[in-house]
Amino acid sequence: MEDLTKKVAELGKRRGFFFQSSEAYGGISGFQTFGPEGAELKRNIEDSWRNTFSRGLGHREIEAPTIMHEPVFEASGHLDGFDDMIIECPECGNSNRADHLVEDNTPISEAEGYSAEQIEGLITEHELVCPSCGSSLNGVDVEDFNLMFETSIGPGNSTPGYLRPETVQGIFVEFPRLKQYARNQLPFGITQIGKAYRNEISPRKGLVRVREFTQAELDLFIDPKEDEPSLEEVEDIKLKLYPVENQNSDGINYIEASVREAAEEGLVNKWISYYLGIAKQWYIEIGVDMDRFRFRQHQPDERAHYASDCWDAEALIDGDWIEIAGFSYRGCYDLTKHGKHSGEEREFSVFKEYDDPETVEETKINIDMSILGPEFGDKASEIAEKLRRKVELGPDIVNEGPIFVHMDEEEYAIDSKTIEVTTEKVTKTGEEIVPHVVEPSFGVDRTVYTVLAHSFTQDSIDGEERKILSLSSEVAPTEVAVFPLMNKEGLGEKAREIANNLRNHGFSVKYDDTGNIGKRYRRQDEVGTPICVTVDYETFEDDPATVTLRDRDSTEQERVHITDLEEVIRSRL
Amino acid sequence: MEDLTKKVAELGKRRGFFFQSSEAYGGISGFQTFGPEGAELKRNIEDSWRNTFSRGLGHREIEAPTIMHEPVFEASGHLDGFDDMIIECPECGNSNRADHLVEDNTPISEAEGYSAEQIEGLITEHELVCPSCGSSLNGVDVEDFNLMFETSIGPGNSTPGYLRPETVQGIFVEFPRLKQYARNQLPFGITQIGKAYRNEISPRKGLVRVREFTQAELDLFIDPKEDEPSLEEVEDIKLKLYPVENQNSDGINYIEASVREAAEEGLVNKWISYYLGIAKQWYIEIGVDMDRFRFRQHQPDERAHYASDCWDAEALIDGDWIEIAGFSYRGCYDLTKHGKHSGEEREFSVFKEYDDPETVEETKINIDMSILGPEFGDKASEIAEKLRRKVELGPDIVNEGPIFVHMDEEEYAIDSKTIEVTTEKVTKTGEEIVPHVVEPSFGVDRTVYTVLAHSFTQDSIDGEERKILSLSSEVAPTEVAVFPLMNKEGLGEKAREIANNLRNHGFSVKYDDTGNIGKRYRRQDEVGTPICVTVDYETFEDDPATVTLRDRDSTEQERVHITDLEEVIRSRL
Repeated sequence: MEDLTKKVAELGKRRGFFFQSSEAYGGISGFQTFGPEGAELKRNIEDSWRNTFSRGLGHREIEAPTIMHEPVFEASGHLDGFDDMIIECPECGNSNRADHLVEDNTPISEAEGYSAEQIEGLITEHELVCPSCGSSLNGVDVEDFNLMFETSIGPGNSTPGYLRPETVQGIFVEFPRLKQYARNQLPFGITQIGKAYRNEISPRKGLVRVREFTQAELDLFIDPKEDEPSLEEVEDIKLKLYPVENQNSDGINYIEASVREAAEEGLVNKWISYYLGIAKQWYIEIGVDMDRFRFRQHQPDERAHYASDCWDAEALIDGDWIEIAGFSYRGCYDLTKHGKHSGEEREFSVFKEYDDPETVEETKINIDMSILGPEFGDKASEIAEKLRRKVELGPDIVNEGPIFVHMDEEEYAIDSKTIEVTTEKVTKTGEEIVPHVVEPSFGVDRTVYTVLAHSFTQDSIDGEERKILSLSSEVAPTEVAVFPLMNKEGLGEKAREIANNLRNHGFSVKYDDTGNIGKRYRRQDEVGTPICVTVDYETFEDDPATVTLRDRDSTEQERVHITDLEEVIRSRL
Repeated sequence: MEDLTKKVAELGKRRGFFFQSSEAYGGISGFQTFGPEGAELKRNIEDSWRNTFSRGLGHREIEAPTIMHEPVFEASGHLDGFDDMIIECPECGNSNRADHLVEDNTPISEAEGYSAEQIEGLITEHELVCPSCGSSLNGVDVEDFNLMFETSIGPGNSTPGYLRPETVQGIFVEFPRLKQYARNQLPFGITQIGKAYRNEISPRKGLVRVREFTQAELDLFIDPKEDEPSLEEVEDIKLKLYPVENQNSDGINYIEASVREAAEEGLVNKWISYYLGIAKQWYIEIGVDMDRFRFRQHQPDERAHYASDCWDAEALIDGDWIEIAGFSYRGCYDLTKHGKHSGEEREFSVFKEYDDPETVEETKINIDMSILGPEFGDKASEIAEKLRRKVELGPDIVNEGPIFVHMDEEEYAIDSKTIEVTTEKVTKTGEEIVPHVVEPSFGVDRTVYTVLAHSFTQDSIDGEERKILSLSSEVAPTEVAVFPLMNKEGLGEKAREIANNLRNHGFSVKYDDTGNIGKRYRRQDEVGTPICVTVDYETFEDDPATVTLRDRDSTEQERVHITDLEEVIRSRL
């Protein structure tokens, strides 16, 4: 079943899509380099995402640093809770992810939500051993391992810093400014495409579980009471859904529902449903195969504590379902946390004006400190504070004689005359609300990998095996390759002229005159170039001049007038 | 003199170009966030760089990880030598860059090349004190502080890793694969735009000295014996040069020379001269003011040890010359180092085929181990090795009786019959050469900052002060802003229609209908939008329909037919 994985890795290395970094130094797990073709494919996917999820939805993109300091991750909860379970072999010292050990060696397929004690129990029950040396792991402690890369900022008594484990924290901490740019109007969306880092215990080869990766994230800040998604834009798009209940029943049973059905029947949170529709369209555009694709709902125990609903986009490669995006409704969790931790709560909320000012009765409590002060000295202000809270809870108390306040194990009786309770009519023009966050978050590296794997095919041409990447022109590193049949008798010059002309028309073009023409076609097939144009001797014989246009997938060739070339290519891409 | 710096910082913050990160948490020095306008400006500058220095020169771009492991930086020399001089105040514990302390408080303007002892001497001589608490620093040690951010990779006995201090190491370590993609043909160029990190001792505010930044680097790998730059492409471009000799004489005296003159008169290394020409054209295109710009040669003591010639592009802002790019001829230093350290020297060289195979005489030395073995036992192979080296130095020695070999303080006499020297004719088809590297390296954040500072102007419109960013359309976040005069009576719909239409023609367009029209113009002036289009009541009165087109810099307005709009805008940008 690992067939496709191997083939894509081989092609990736040979043609310059991706490969392990620093191989000359033995490489280091979890770090991959994108070669020239891969970097271009990745950039095209990022640009396409940007056009769809940022510009296309009227949102704005920012770029925040990848290193952030400790208080940010105290607030976000990553410092305490962003852990995987690790088990270290007492014999050989190798570390492994304890939940993966259970998944790989027991009938349990999803152990991430289990507690350390449960995992320890399963290891004992199934008599699991160290995958490196075979020693028994019976009774070995399962521990938490924080996945953030730590560093220190500045010299001397330096400040701890962390490489962000998700790009989104860079958006949340800048909320105070971002709401200014949005002129305090909800909803507004902020996007970011950038690096994120997780110090994985056992990274896999290839692009699926790496320690340094790129995320493309959108955070939409909404007023949960008023804002609604524009379902009409995507309402008829059919979603292949795999909800929690279906995961818990036997067999794999998907539900097919339109975006509107999913939202209105409560199958999927309405905001998430909207984004699943947009995402599905986008995945089709960049070449993800819908027969190997689904949206899977998170089980309650795998869902982050802040998320009220969460769905993943998953792609099937070699029998494994790989998470390539997550869609969560994060509620007000993040902004509330950052408001509290920074002590700047007002900065993390939005003042929402009412359509019409409201007049409300407001209770005012005045405490006469000229009585309390002389009587209680340095305890006066603390007593006043307790008094105020007591009265706030039930203002009628002031009519019931002295009020008793407990403090430092003593009880003080306060004359109710020191307190005056009045009600005033106040006109409120609006209120501070903490926006809710809807977050579609895409793993770019895994998307690149899925696009490569789902575009990879093989066929046989004249008895010779051919490898093809059927990349869509939306993402292909090269749209058109131009060749001279031979680099002589003016063929090279003509081909270069055509290449430059197509470039000026906005196509991404490659010129190649080395090796025989068959080899050049194979090379372009393997890097996913949809169209090849060849200048040959007939070019000059024909009037008007013609070239051969070859289609990557069918390998069919046809003669096209040079004057029509741009138009024909545009219609094919 | 700090006027422009302050104004750009104010505008940067207010309009969303750049600001200190995580301000709600008090911020942390050396980390800046690009807001929506800044991120877009930065991306446009990166794309423009990519078009000029990567695609435009036929080079390919890669994307390597930002975390690399220790052996890479042992080889590159960063682990040992990438230090700044630090002095820690014994009273208050604050750390400062020792060379900057000297530069700021003595007549010496460039102290980076000085030794720690020299700096200590100057601190004593000028009686310098701690800038934080005023205590004397007399006699305090000046120490080296490594500027790389360190982290550890993986759990348990983890591997040290570093955030790369320059993107280029990601290119060098992948040379073995990159030369494959270039089919072993020199010259070839590889580019990368990505993050780099330096744990600066005293970062400055703003974008000039930050701890996390973006570099755009090009590494051209050449055969130093054969390859020549295409000077003819840029030969007539005039360069404002500030060579070492002129820096060491009184006053500021620039030399103006064309690219060809600079190269042929030996003023500038020919490859660097070529890139200075390309860079100058590019800087003009993105809006760097040539009256506040120069190319400055590195002094021998500030030049990196590997560079035989090095020039900086420098921009003048508020009286300070800021380095915005460096152009170095790195020779074979880097590839040789990585070849040696990785033990894979062949991987870091290129096999260069001769035009015609060469026949050469090769001396072969055969040592008869069947004699040496029995005689010398376990010392035989070591003796054979010493023997071979002796014979290599002078083959005639075999005709002069026994050969004496010293080993372990003993002398062994070896019968010359054990050695046979023959010469053979060998046909060589080529040889391994270590390519030289020419490296133009651009600081993207500083370029963004220079473009902002050099585009910033103020004028007065109807007695009201106006701030303008005169950004070139090549880099402006928005090319055209479209407004309805009022958002009623169909003006809004028409304006949206025009905006969408312009977007479909490939312009970057913003639609805005909030606030009065004067405020909307100011807003666009401040984010550098070259053209505003306003739909007003006349629009529908005119036949064919017209709109107002307003020029940012002159504020002049004219009526344009909607049908001509695209063409008129294109001619103005």
